[in-house]
Amino acid sequence: MSLSAETLEEAILSFLPPEEPLIRTAVDAMRYSLTAGGKRIRPKLTLAFAKLCGGSEEAALPFACAIEMIHTYSLIHDDLPCMDDDDMRRGKPTNHKVFGEAAAVLAGDALLTLAFETVLSEQAAALNGYEKCVKAGKILSSCAGAEGMIGGQIIDMESENKTVSAEHLAVMDRKKTGALIKAACLMGCISAGADEVQCQAAERYAECIGLAFQIVDDMLDVISDEATLGKPIGSDTDNHKSTYVSLLGLEECRKRSAALTEEAISSLSVFPQGAEELKELAVRLRDRMK
Amino acid sequence: MSLSAETLEEAILSFLPPEEPLIRTAVDAMRYSLTAGGKRIRPKLTLAFAKLCGGSEEAALPFACAIEMIHTYSLIHDDLPCMDDDDMRRGKPTNHKVFGEAAAVLAGDALLTLAFETVLSEQAAALNGYEKCVKAGKILSSCAGAEGMIGGQIIDMESENKTVSAEHLAVMDRKKTGALIKAACLMGCISAGADEVQCQAAERYAECIGLAFQIVDDMLDVISDEATLGKPIGSDTDNHKSTYVSLLGLEECRKRSAALTEEAISSLSVFPQGAEELKELAVRLRDRMK
Repeated sequence: MSLSAETLEEAILSFLPPEEPLIRTAVDAMRYSLTAGGKRIRPKLTLAFAKLCGGSEEAALPFACAIEMIHTYSLIHDDLPCMDDDDMRRGKPTNHKVFGEAAAVLAGDALLTLAFETVLSEQAAALNGYEKCVKAGKILSSCAGAEGMIGGQIIDMESENKTVSAEHLAVMDRKKTGALIKAACLMGCISAGADEVQCQAAERYAECIGLAFQIVDDMLDVISDEATLGKPIGSDTDNHKSTYVSLLGLEECRKRSAALTEEAISSLSVFPQGAEELKELAVRLRDRMK
Repeated sequence: MSLSAETLEEAILSFLPPEEPLIRTAVDAMRYSLTAGGKRIRPKLTLAFAKLCGGSEEAALPFACAIEMIHTYSLIHDDLPCMDDDDMRRGKPTNHKVFGEAAAVLAGDALLTLAFETVLSEQAAALNGYEKCVKAGKILSSCAGAEGMIGGQIIDMESENKTVSAEHLAVMDRKKTGALIKAACLMGCISAGADEVQCQAAERYAECIGLAFQIVDDMLDVISDEATLGKPIGSDTDNHKSTYVSLLGLEECRKRSAALTEEAISSLSVFPQGAEELKELAVRLRDRMK
């Protein structure tokens, strides 16, 4: 049985610092975005791979919480006026709209920092041992840093108002969204002490669902509506961004996301049993409406 | 003998990611601020405490590099238009003036992330072992996060245009500058496997020089000149900030910084020898002109 969404959220929030009155704004801003209705895809991946590789959800839980903190900080900073300048996210005002720009920058910084505090926490070390904590933190930092997610952001920023190729988009997305999904899967493997074959399967699964996820994202920006998506649609077109849809068309996007989902599922064949949850997750991501 | 400033800078830069063309802006922006003429006080503290507690500079070097990365990211984000909106830092245009706001936010995020990648690097683990890397990373994250440095920033932000007490300033500064100085000293102790008494002495030393440092900072904003300081003077007055000088007067500030420096030096008495470098550093910080 999998951890409930409530238990996961509770665990994430348990790592927040206690609310000293003087730093209340920081903690409030951190909590606001952590509880703003995320789909928790990344922590679920961590927990699912931990179980699949013979580990426990309990041990992997601090790693799962850390990956969600990194994801959340990246959304707060992405939404800033100097970045994408978004007012709404998941149907709610963005962090800087509620707390102001300065507090939003700091809340993002604090969540990024807290992610590492969580991976290196006494709880994480007691359940996983020091070596696994170091390895998980190393994967997390390299995937979240300039060679991973942040590098993808830079490429995205510099690609605006330019027509770029689908290959360029794939390089960008492999960093921008793919890297963190890879970290999520591998941190689960690390917690479980997975072998090389298992880690490679996890990495391939992550690559496929990461790219499929981004293709579906671009499709939803065209075919969804604001109420369902929780943010304005058509923003890619308005921002003159090249997307998989603008480059390949909707039909080809559908085909590619389906093929990638198939490949993700078949990469799990090295696991003789127990991979149903991850297979279903891949399908749900392909078929999602928001 | 201590590491030269050049060797330290080289070591810091060696952790930067290789310059793939697509992420060049990120790496350039990171390097720009890392080489912008910092005094390297924090990494020097890490190395000095490592030696003083019987460890080696070589083993403590990745921890020293990490603390300078955290310090550098905090300056980049502090200088942003939505924060202090500073155009100059150490006599050079601030990061966002050169690379733009979005890249400056991302370069700061990337340096913060790189700090943890560095503490958890193969080099750090090979020289210190996994347990010390976890402990060093834990101190670094708790001192840099919402309960430490970032909390201090929030308090600072919310104290603007208010008259606050010297006690309030001290609480703020203990977080804003003191926490990272404490982390610097303790990470050196951790690398060396220092005992409880040594760690307590390091912590007391850090507290004293941290507060003295901030008092001297406030004094320099009044008594220095722009050419020496590398940034406009009088900015605290212009920003209607309460400072130790505005609250206590210059003479009392001089007395307090002198007394704190004395106390920092006497806290080192638990070390029968080898503490000269740290004693001199405390005096230099008291007498600095920039």
